[in-house]
Amino acid sequence: MSRISRLVVVGLGLIGGSVARGVKARGLAAEVVGVGRDPVRLERARGLRGADLVLLATPVGSLPGLVREAWPHLEPGAVLTDAGSVKGEVVAAAGACPARPETTFVGGHPLAGSEQSGFAASRPDLFEDSLTILTPTAAAPAEAVARVSALWLGLGSQVRLMSAEEHDRAVAAISHLPHLVAYALVGAAGEALPLAARGFQDTTRIAASDEVLWADIFRGNREALLAALETFGALLARWEALIRAGEWTALEAELARVRELREKLG
Amino acid sequence: MSRISRLVVVGLGLIGGSVARGVKARGLAAEVVGVGRDPVRLERARGLRGADLVLLATPVGSLPGLVREAWPHLEPGAVLTDAGSVKGEVVAAAGACPARPETTFVGGHPLAGSEQSGFAASRPDLFEDSLTILTPTAAAPAEAVARVSALWLGLGSQVRLMSAEEHDRAVAAISHLPHLVAYALVGAAGEALPLAARGFQDTTRIAASDEVLWADIFRGNREALLAALETFGALLARWEALIRAGEWTALEAELARVRELREKLG
Repeated sequence: MSRISRLVVVGLGLIGGSVARGVKARGLAAEVVGVGRDPVRLERARGLRGADLVLLATPVGSLPGLVREAWPHLEPGAVLTDAGSVKGEVVAAAGACPARPETTFVGGHPLAGSEQSGFAASRPDLFEDSLTILTPTAAAPAEAVARVSALWLGLGSQVRLMSAEEHDRAVAAISHLPHLVAYALVGAAGEALPLAARGFQDTTRIAASDEVLWADIFRGNREALLAALETFGALLARWEALIRAGEWTALEAELARVRELREKLG
Repeated sequence: MSRISRLVVVGLGLIGGSVARGVKARGLAAEVVGVGRDPVRLERARGLRGADLVLLATPVGSLPGLVREAWPHLEPGAVLTDAGSVKGEVVAAAGACPARPETTFVGGHPLAGSEQSGFAASRPDLFEDSLTILTPTAAAPAEAVARVSALWLGLGSQVRLMSAEEHDRAVAAISHLPHLVAYALVGAAGEALPLAARGFQDTTRIAASDEVLWADIFRGNREALLAALETFGALLARWEALIRAGEWTALEAELARVRELREKLG
């Protein structure tokens, strides 16, 4: 894998900070430049000079605007990527930018993180043994995809490619819906909350996540989240009907199937 | 606190095994006898001879029958207790037994455990820093409640008293509903499941729990579980409406309130 010459990370929160620190710790790039998410435009444009890889690691809702803003300032041959939890919007925004033959956008999403946020929570090893999903369009040159892959592989992550739509459906089910549900379990617990034991704490740990980041993610992936919520609601309604009817053997059989799936995850 | 002379633990799974091991390790009783959950009746009756404290640590559905079976064989002055996750049924079964002035039942529930089950998963320190709820009726003598409290306090647990009804409502919200919901999140994830990251694994860890034990708990606490499910469903439906309507500021405000509650749990 070719080494990165100059990596610019825009946004130094949990994800951007961890990338910058991990890249430095492992020597994955000759130079790493971190740019806060609120610099003036000119500074940002100057920061992009000479960069062969630019990673946008800012909240989901800010990404389409940042892509449009950065695009004309990218060097020929540069690859622009991001680390957002929703891919449809940002990939569409990049696709709508005026074509520049030597400039490529490759969407990305490291499935790492925690209920914490901000640079103070960043860790150079955050991506070890994690999975990063890249969502290149068919038009993306293989070498652009390889450069972004090299970044995440170098940080200890596995890399998987899929379409932005497939990504957004998947994370709705395994991340966005579970966050919404965890918030709702805490909200519905009422006066019983102080009695909560370890199981409840594990189940609802993600409900300690920053609500501004998460409302933004729910907004960005609204359609897929609503679809996942419908699937979840239908399953829960079927089990509720079994409970009302006292169909314990049927319920046990359904729970057994799910328990086996869960055990495989470790 | 008075030392226990002879403690009989019926059922040597995760909870019963951990109690027996913890009591031995800490010398909380002069003698500890473990009885499997499927001995013949006579053996069980003989096992109760001389016991001043008998703990039933078998599945929820088996408890009312075991209380009725053990009751006539208890020594004068003996206290019968249990460790079941649902209290209404077993407390009612004990209340319906023929009165014996020197014999007391005190319902109990250690809020400890894990997605694992069985003696192999038992640990003498399982109850350290946990909370045990006792549900004595108004008729229970203070010294009987003190003897059961002494067991759990000795094992490192805190003890709290409440009515069986209050207990069952509380655990529906903080334990039974979260289990049902965690199973449903796994069941609804479908093909996306292999992509699950740490957050999903934490949220759904309890979905690796034994479905036979849990279907039995859902059965035992059906009414409170259905009520908790209704509260949860109404909250989720309200948030779904906010998401559909694009009311992000209102959603953020609701999530913020919940996030603050969750953060207090640690």
